[in-house]
Amino acid sequence: MDEMLMHKPEEECGIFGVFNHPEASNLTYLGLYALQHRGQESCGIVSSDGAALHAHKSMGLVADVFGNQEIFKSLPGRSAIGHVRYSTTGSSVIKNVQPINVDYSRGSIAVAHNGNLVNAQIIKDELEAYGSIFQTTMDTEIIVHLLATSKANSLLDRLTDALNRIQGAYCLLFLTETRMIAARDPNGFRPLCLGRLGSSYVVASESCALDLIDAEFIREIEPGEVVHIDKNGLTSYFPLKKVQPTPCIFEFVYFARPDSHIFGKNVYQVRKEQGRQLAREHKVDADIVIPIPDSGVPAALGYAEESGIPFELGLIRNHYVGRTFIEPQQAIRHFGVKIKLNPVREVLKGKRVVVIDDSIVRGTTSRKIVKMIRNAGAAEVHVRISSPPTSYPCYYGIDTPNRKELISSSHSIDEIRRYITADSLGYLSEEGLMASVGADKASFCHACFTGGYPVKFPRLAQDEEPQMALFEKETENK
Amino acid sequence: MDEMLMHKPEEECGIFGVFNHPEASNLTYLGLYALQHRGQESCGIVSSDGAALHAHKSMGLVADVFGNQEIFKSLPGRSAIGHVRYSTTGSSVIKNVQPINVDYSRGSIAVAHNGNLVNAQIIKDELEAYGSIFQTTMDTEIIVHLLATSKANSLLDRLTDALNRIQGAYCLLFLTETRMIAARDPNGFRPLCLGRLGSSYVVASESCALDLIDAEFIREIEPGEVVHIDKNGLTSYFPLKKVQPTPCIFEFVYFARPDSHIFGKNVYQVRKEQGRQLAREHKVDADIVIPIPDSGVPAALGYAEESGIPFELGLIRNHYVGRTFIEPQQAIRHFGVKIKLNPVREVLKGKRVVVIDDSIVRGTTSRKIVKMIRNAGAAEVHVRISSPPTSYPCYYGIDTPNRKELISSSHSIDEIRRYITADSLGYLSEEGLMASVGADKASFCHACFTGGYPVKFPRLAQDEEPQMALFEKETENK
Amino acid sequence: MDEMLMHKPEEECGIFGVFNHPEASNLTYLGLYALQHRGQESCGIVSSDGAALHAHKSMGLVADVFGNQEIFKSLPGRSAIGHVRYSTTGSSVIKNVQPINVDYSRGSIAVAHNGNLVNAQIIKDELEAYGSIFQTTMDTEIIVHLLATSKANSLLDRLTDALNRIQGAYCLLFLTETRMIAARDPNGFRPLCLGRLGSSYVVASESCALDLIDAEFIREIEPGEVVHIDKNGLTSYFPLKKVQPTPCIFEFVYFARPDSHIFGKNVYQVRKEQGRQLAREHKVDADIVIPIPDSGVPAALGYAEESGIPFELGLIRNHYVGRTFIEPQQAIRHFGVKIKLNPVREVLKGKRVVVIDDSIVRGTTSRKIVKMIRNAGAAEVHVRISSPPTSYPCYYGIDTPNRKELISSSHSIDEIRRYITADSLGYLSEEGLMASVGADKASFCHACFTGGYPVKFPRLAQDEEPQMALFEKETENK
Amino acid sequence: MDEMLMHKPEEECGIFGVFNHPEASNLTYLGLYALQHRGQESCGIVSSDGAALHAHKSMGLVADVFGNQEIFKSLPGRSAIGHVRYSTTGSSVIKNVQPINVDYSRGSIAVAHNGNLVNAQIIKDELEAYGSIFQTTMDTEIIVHLLATSKANSLLDRLTDALNRIQGAYCLLFLTETRMIAARDPNGFRPLCLGRLGSSYVVASESCALDLIDAEFIREIEPGEVVHIDKNGLTSYFPLKKVQPTPCIFEFVYFARPDSHIFGKNVYQVRKEQGRQLAREHKVDADIVIPIPDSGVPAALGYAEESGIPFELGLIRNHYVGRTFIEPQQAIRHFGVKIKLNPVREVLKGKRVVVIDDSIVRGTTSRKIVKMIRNAGAAEVHVRISSPPTSYPCYYGIDTPNRKELISSSHSIDEIRRYITADSLGYLSEEGLMASVGADKASFCHACFTGGYPVKFPRLAQDEEPQMALFEKETENK
Repeated sequence: MDEMLMHKPEEECGIFGVFNHPEASNLTYLGLYALQHRGQESCGIVSSDGAALHAHKSMGLVADVFGNQEIFKSLPGRSAIGHVRYSTTGSSVIKNVQPINVDYSRGSIAVAHNGNLVNAQIIKDELEAYGSIFQTTMDTEIIVHLLATSKANSLLDRLTDALNRIQGAYCLLFLTETRMIAARDPNGFRPLCLGRLGSSYVVASESCALDLIDAEFIREIEPGEVVHIDKNGLTSYFPLKKVQPTPCIFEFVYFARPDSHIFGKNVYQVRKEQGRQLAREHKVDADIVIPIPDSGVPAALGYAEESGIPFELGLIRNHYVGRTFIEPQQAIRHFGVKIKLNPVREVLKGKRVVVIDDSIVRGTTSRKIVKMIRNAGAAEVHVRISSPPTSYPCYYGIDTPNRKELISSSHSIDEIRRYITADSLGYLSEEGLMASVGADKASFCHACFTGGYPVKFPRLAQDEEPQMALFEKETENK
Repeated sequence: MDEMLMHKPEEECGIFGVFNHPEASNLTYLGLYALQHRGQESCGIVSSDGAALHAHKSMGLVADVFGNQEIFKSLPGRSAIGHVRYSTTGSSVIKNVQPINVDYSRGSIAVAHNGNLVNAQIIKDELEAYGSIFQTTMDTEIIVHLLATSKANSLLDRLTDALNRIQGAYCLLFLTETRMIAARDPNGFRPLCLGRLGSSYVVASESCALDLIDAEFIREIEPGEVVHIDKNGLTSYFPLKKVQPTPCIFEFVYFARPDSHIFGKNVYQVRKEQGRQLAREHKVDADIVIPIPDSGVPAALGYAEESGIPFELGLIRNHYVGRTFIEPQQAIRHFGVKIKLNPVREVLKGKRVVVIDDSIVRGTTSRKIVKMIRNAGAAEVHVRISSPPTSYPCYYGIDTPNRKELISSSHSIDEIRRYITADSLGYLSEEGLMASVGADKASFCHACFTGGYPVKFPRLAQDEEPQMALFEKETENK
Repeated sequence: MDEMLMHKPEEECGIFGVFNHPEASNLTYLGLYALQHRGQESCGIVSSDGAALHAHKSMGLVADVFGNQEIFKSLPGRSAIGHVRYSTTGSSVIKNVQPINVDYSRGSIAVAHNGNLVNAQIIKDELEAYGSIFQTTMDTEIIVHLLATSKANSLLDRLTDALNRIQGAYCLLFLTETRMIAARDPNGFRPLCLGRLGSSYVVASESCALDLIDAEFIREIEPGEVVHIDKNGLTSYFPLKKVQPTPCIFEFVYFARPDSHIFGKNVYQVRKEQGRQLAREHKVDADIVIPIPDSGVPAALGYAEESGIPFELGLIRNHYVGRTFIEPQQAIRHFGVKIKLNPVREVLKGKRVVVIDDSIVRGTTSRKIVKMIRNAGAAEVHVRISSPPTSYPCYYGIDTPNRKELISSSHSIDEIRRYITADSLGYLSEEGLMASVGADKASFCHACFTGGYPVKFPRLAQDEEPQMALFEKETENK
Repeated sequence: MDEMLMHKPEEECGIFGVFNHPEASNLTYLGLYALQHRGQESCGIVSSDGAALHAHKSMGLVADVFGNQEIFKSLPGRSAIGHVRYSTTGSSVIKNVQPINVDYSRGSIAVAHNGNLVNAQIIKDELEAYGSIFQTTMDTEIIVHLLATSKANSLLDRLTDALNRIQGAYCLLFLTETRMIAARDPNGFRPLCLGRLGSSYVVASESCALDLIDAEFIREIEPGEVVHIDKNGLTSYFPLKKVQPTPCIFEFVYFARPDSHIFGKNVYQVRKEQGRQLAREHKVDADIVIPIPDSGVPAALGYAEESGIPFELGLIRNHYVGRTFIEPQQAIRHFGVKIKLNPVREVLKGKRVVVIDDSIVRGTTSRKIVKMIRNAGAAEVHVRISSPPTSYPCYYGIDTPNRKELISSSHSIDEIRRYITADSLGYLSEEGLMASVGADKASFCHACFTGGYPVKFPRLAQDEEPQMALFEKETENK
């Protein structure tokens, strides 16, 4: 069991909080709604009325879980934090819905977490050895245990103790009866920003959530920063050892919303610049540039602009896709892809087509898309990817498959090209990617491309895929 | 009561049917899913096992209503028809869900209807006078009554009788124990196409539904055509007096999916051409062209292409919008719009912006959008509309408000410009719109722009808004 | 097809209405709740606000379907009628939920029906021949068609026309915008009573529904009577030919609630008297008398009283039984019965037990119960039935199986005794049953015992089980 | 905070477990179904497949929560434990649903608990002081923490440590990956029995749950006994100091099902004997004896038998009562009671009535019932209670109100009689109650009658109602 000291990030998430507003829970609901793209599986809100915490959490989309005015009556108070969560099927159970809220020696506390700890299993083993029990399979529960078992007196000292123990990626939002605390890990893997709405403070994973509620963007919360908010106002702390910040470059490539401002830049503009770089690096004689909608649109616009090849919508996305789909028994070509995308035959017919996507994971979807475009009459299909090959899994909070399933980890670019049946395939270079954000490689986490993990795992057997399922000793069904 | 001989079209709808396929209901479900954009309120499928009809209908989206494998066991048989429906709030009740299925003297029959009859009330009054009872408030029910009360012997003759009585817009799909019949009104207001899947026939409102199930597009069903399909194959009839077809130009402007092929053309390409025409007609010095996503994208691409002004995504759409939204009590600027759209500040800041939308209805949403763009820092906001001013309500199946609520019916273009606070406002001319489809004005229904209704209403008091609510004597709640 | 001029009663129902009360829908809800024993499958309420009808109907129990204050806002007005319904599995679909509410030439009308027509198919065929369409499989729909097709001018005349056409069992409650009408068939098969609550009139299937809302019992509505209530008050009519009334004796045996007063008598007291008669007719040396709870309790008390043998609860009923039950694969003895009943071993052990039940239908349940009692240690098990053998199906509104499934129709009492493994078996005689209600045989319908159907069927092939499924040409699933 | 060392029992519960059966979860579901009367608010099952635990829990009745075959696929394995729970409104939230299942240093463990600890708050404070966090407000969570924090090595030693810390009432069922353990507190407050089904062991709160699944009753689990079951079979331990057992006499009076065998006796027979004793102690000249159904029936039969006064059903119970009820605004006499009970006027009219109930809590319901009986025409109403006055709250697991709300704690019997408007009122004496179970006072807990609490509370201010709400620092809404 020794080599399994790490576990797979199970979560892509969004967090949001508001302090000192008469409609705290309602605003948190709106904030979560704007962050829905960061997690569609479950969501929850915990509010504080000054004396006690109140919670409502459930599996489902924000608009469904909170689609009833009555719910807000059960979430009274002037402060609230919320969470949206995506996770892989195995652990998508009601008990893992956040925020976690507990009683401990100092009262009640709730926490919402975006990110993934790399030393969760070690700490969990230790905590269990001292008698702690775990009711969820989320590493977030570990943080609350550390808070509770710290011998320090003040909440901030206890929090410092806890943060000094955990390693990995985290943006955390805590809510007690009387305060809200935000913390971002020293590497600053995930985005987190601070806003103001009248006399209220707001914290959100992305700035698009501030926009929706008319809150003013103040600044990003810095890597390693702890922001403490109570009736006396806001105080900032840096209780952890400084390290070179390494925000996640993939937030720019795929995850964040294009209208958000994160890591000092607007996502849409970065993506467009990736497209331009890609055009510079991988020119091709072609008639049209088309994106895989919606994520590939900005890069495709950049590619078109730089290359001078006209931008077209060659694939139309169906926006009514539900979570489950009843498949017919009779085979339908490219079924999985067709449910989401349909080619515009008249646009593609006879054309040499450049298709822009943000990444290739297993390659199976790209293969279906290329074939679909060709079936629609395209003369040539040239695939361009606005990021380098994804060869290493992420352990800091993005849901990627095991190494074995990542096609780039075991295949050359030309092998991938042949597999996806493209006429040509070009990935944006690491340098090009960094140029698109105007930074050098050291300033971002690029582990998924290079395997250079900025936060080391407690112990990892060489050449071995870290085991994933350890943390989950049991699965609950709900 | 005499002047109220017309009622408001309550329905935007999509219809789909498949004859002689072992997975008829499952394919119909997929077809409806591809037509979801034509109606999100309710849906239903009726199947035939050769001896009896089976139905499943409910309020809700296709993926939710049919999100369970078990349901398909209750829809056995090799033929099925389905329906998606949108309607205004008042009549959105379970009893109005289609297809309607009834027993009558010749057995069972089900019908799905896209469109709107203009003489429904007159016929209804007559039928009631002879003793008919009405259990829904849909004009579709009238058609079934006409079928049932016809003295003719064969089903086709009875259908001819019925079609000769009704006036207005209709694409109809009938299913009996052993046949499927499709009918399109002589004006051909709504699109309807025919496809083949192996030895099965498929009928759908738009070709995108054929694409999803890998069915081959054969041809459009013609205005005034009745297509009869049974075990002996397909037969075509033209039982009605020929008139100049007037398909709905608005299907091209807004309603149909861009990947569909309707009225002989691809929708995406027509919309792009509308954008180009618009650029020719309403040039402006500007820095960027942005669409109102998603419907404005093709026209904006055309405008950008023609004008040479760069295309950008200046507004990002949130695709997780639910049907209801719990609003906070505190005012949020442009709230109704913000829930769907968020500006990309970095794209808009300091720019002279051309915004492309497909139409302006009441003007309130456009006003919010213009202000939102300006708040995001735009130096100038020039609104361009890819259709002429919508001054007259549609009575043929598109959900438009009363004349009074249509801002163009009572305000000049400059007044509208001032109301929506744009720096300039340009509508595509009728000629430009017609040029974009390569046809003359007589070839399309343009009543919403000109008031020239191609099918007259039985009687309509001058200068009077026809009364709307007559048909609905009562409202059921479910 | 000629011989199938009758169809199986699919319904056991309860109806309730209130006229001119500010809380009409809420009182109707309470009334239905008190009548829940008459139908647990679906329920509905239609209210009138003086200008229009409003409806809410659904599958499910009254407390669930109306378990939300909001629903009553959608049922405004001072008058309302409601319905609870049970039916066999096949036709338990949403479209068959009552009250039916329709538009016709004179406005809107809703109807709730308890009972079953014997000439429904004939009339349906006729109506269809003249062009009527049927959207449900309930014979109630026929009544509305007859109302609508009558040439008479006043509603009461139209109703008279309709009632003169239908034969069989019916208690009907009609609601229009401005009036409520109750009608009971000339034979008076089903109970119906009239009450007063302040200045409001109330109509209910059983008096227990009046009790719950504090309404005063005025009188039963008489066989053949039509009661018309509007703002001018109550008027009574007898528009049909008088016949000898034959109320259903089975209401006394099993169906009605013991606290109700129907057909001039209290149900509990009649049942107790049945038990006494049974004791007189079928004495046996025994130690204890036990009922099948809950329906057998009054008769068991009567039997115990008359025989002097002590009454005990030897079987305990589980009142939390849901509609469905997930059975284990491993056989559990008497499983179907055990879910509802558990023997009290200490009461039964070594005892000679008299078990009182109200009827034996197929015999399978009785057999399980006898074996269960014997397994619990009983020395002897003597079964006593408080009604005569049920050898003929009911066509007037009680849900009984086909003749073939009625064990008494093909087996002698001794054969039944052997089948159910009882030591002795005694049925109450017809004379005894009549004595228990103090009437002669002519005064009640006893068709289920004797086959003497008081209302003839239009045409019935000799010795043939009338076909059941005719009316239902198709089945809808919801 | 010192005086608040006790908290109110919030739970009436039932528990069930089966070890080593291929259909473990399905049998547990049936067992819970038979124990539904012990808790209707929520339920849950945890199963073990030998390697991991699986859980399904929810608010609602057993038949609803587990009404779907699919659920059992998510509860695999040959062992399972389950729980049904009732609690007062405040804490009826999803997070408090049992069994609790957690991970700790030795793997996974689940626990189901019937009863209430009196030193929960003290232990909780201690555990929190050492860093434990609490995610529910159930004292059951404390037990798991004690198990986890014990320094002992074997599970049984850890359990012994934990049991030596807790005081109060508990029947516990533990499930780990490979074993099932049952424990009953030394006083044996709540019933717990052991059964066998082939080679499987079964544990249940009451024997009626064994009956339903055809399991053989072996014996009751003794006060202070720990029963350990694994693949090697069953072992029994008595790790705690012996005390005089004091099972809860109220289980006999009201709580247990009459067909169960608990504390060495059949419940029905004990209740009947209570009725007989009551007749001896409180004779009255009367015409009929009626029970408050269903719980009062056995005692009423005993009273009738002993007194010679005929037993009748004068009140009929409505068995379709849902959890919520939409009340009309207009006052209805005795509404709260009428929803459940309706008088049989014809039985009561002019009669001198003895009404048998099991207890009087606040007196308000009894008052409504007496008035209802009198309104129905009774000449005299004599109330007889088959237990002594309930003057003290229970802290061992029966849901009783605070002392202040217990009418007997502050009013004489004659005052109560006047309040409930009865002609006479008689309670069974303590001696009579003990005689009915053939035991002396020391053999049962009679604290609710006498205040003689057999297990002392850690510290309780004199003459003070112990504070109730302490444990619940916050309330979650779901």
